[in-house]
Amino acid sequence: MTLDTNLTPTSPTAVVLLSGGLDSTTVLAIALDQGFDIVALSFLYGQNHRHEIEHAQAIATQAGIKDHCIVNIDLSQFGQSALTTDLKVPKHDHVSEIGYDIPITYVPARNTIFLSYALALAEVRQATDIFIGVNALDYSGYPDCRPEFIAAFGELANLATKINTVSAADLSDVKTTIHAPLINMTKAEIIKEGLRLNVQYQMTTSCYDPVSNDLACGRCDACLLRLQGFAVNDLSDPIQYAE
Amino acid sequence: MTLDTNLTPTSPTAVVLLSGGLDSTTVLAIALDQGFDIVALSFLYGQNHRHEIEHAQAIATQAGIKDHCIVNIDLSQFGQSALTTDLKVPKHDHVSEIGYDIPITYVPARNTIFLSYALALAEVRQATDIFIGVNALDYSGYPDCRPEFIAAFGELANLATKINTVSAADLSDVKTTIHAPLINMTKAEIIKEGLRLNVQYQMTTSCYDPVSNDLACGRCDACLLRLQGFAVNDLSDPIQYAE
Repeated sequence: MTLDTNLTPTSPTAVVLLSGGLDSTTVLAIALDQGFDIVALSFLYGQNHRHEIEHAQAIATQAGIKDHCIVNIDLSQFGQSALTTDLKVPKHDHVSEIGYDIPITYVPARNTIFLSYALALAEVRQATDIFIGVNALDYSGYPDCRPEFIAAFGELANLATKINTVSAADLSDVKTTIHAPLINMTKAEIIKEGLRLNVQYQMTTSCYDPVSNDLACGRCDACLLRLQGFAVNDLSDPIQYAE
Repeated sequence: MTLDTNLTPTSPTAVVLLSGGLDSTTVLAIALDQGFDIVALSFLYGQNHRHEIEHAQAIATQAGIKDHCIVNIDLSQFGQSALTTDLKVPKHDHVSEIGYDIPITYVPARNTIFLSYALALAEVRQATDIFIGVNALDYSGYPDCRPEFIAAFGELANLATKINTVSAADLSDVKTTIHAPLINMTKAEIIKEGLRLNVQYQMTTSCYDPVSNDLACGRCDACLLRLQGFAVNDLSDPIQYAE
């Protein structure tokens, strides 16, 4: 009697949005830990800190990801964000100075656009799961990082593509799921979970306005929140800072 | 006493997705008729029939639209569609032969991606209305042309951007609305309404697989549905066909 290899169970496939930052790299580790085959998706979207894509590539390679899709789009044409124009990224001396208003680093509809591409890629790769590292606690007040936004995209996803429409007739339990495992975690909790999963945080980059490719500013919202997350865990952030 | 010009009412602004086709050109006329200032949005998305963008430009100019945003994205990298790859566009001899399955001309998540960009542009232009020419009757069975998809995107839109988040505190009645005025119309009804609004249908293009820039194939789903729409109105389609 021989084994029918067609019956060998294969892992489900997930699309993971990977920016090269602390959050998305932790999400990648979580998705891998949950047993998914990973398709990584990164964007050159006109961001000033575009060196993050090199971090994303190195992180994907280190994690053994063979399918890494890098999409080139130009969100700078919509302007209005310090991440894609020459508007100044706000700097602070302490994390407590971060305001509650939506900051100038907000990119109009960015996560909606990113998730839309993830949905297209998921359909093409027959993946029913999408992972995104949005976070609604230690974040910068972006509207498209809130749980209600993610829930609404999940509703949309299940109406938008062929995979779900066909499945309605063929397989009633095929459903696209948007995973945002960090959404209710503090930055400190995210780092703790990432370290448990052996995330190599020295490979990640978070700074909105780096001094050079490998030297974070230490004073933008992203740097301050990250530094605080490591400090709460009684750890030093392994990346290099200008000050 | 002088008039305070700051009190002069200005028209509300709407983003209109404009492909250069029969449907979106009719939608543009409807939005203009409703008194909106228009920001037109078109996509070079890797479609084989990219000459449609020239039609969109001519139509926008003829309509007096001064703000026409053309976004360059590459959906061909996701493959799987006859509109963006060398897969053959299905041809039929009669409109009755169009099937009910989702055809090979479906582009994965295209309308989700298009509407996401429309949302970004709407936010930047402070537009609270988005018009899209999807149609759920005389269409090709695309999942992202259904009323439930449009309704879900409307829900998402009101959670996704700064305009809505800020408005929740400032102006409780600021809301993004997705208009799909053609969604329950037959192609014949769309054409009748367009002619009432003086749409110049000879400027439009619908063919998925044109013989040349100004010569439609006459046998793809888009051609057959369009030809039937004019025939029901006892009219000839003013564009040129190969057969």
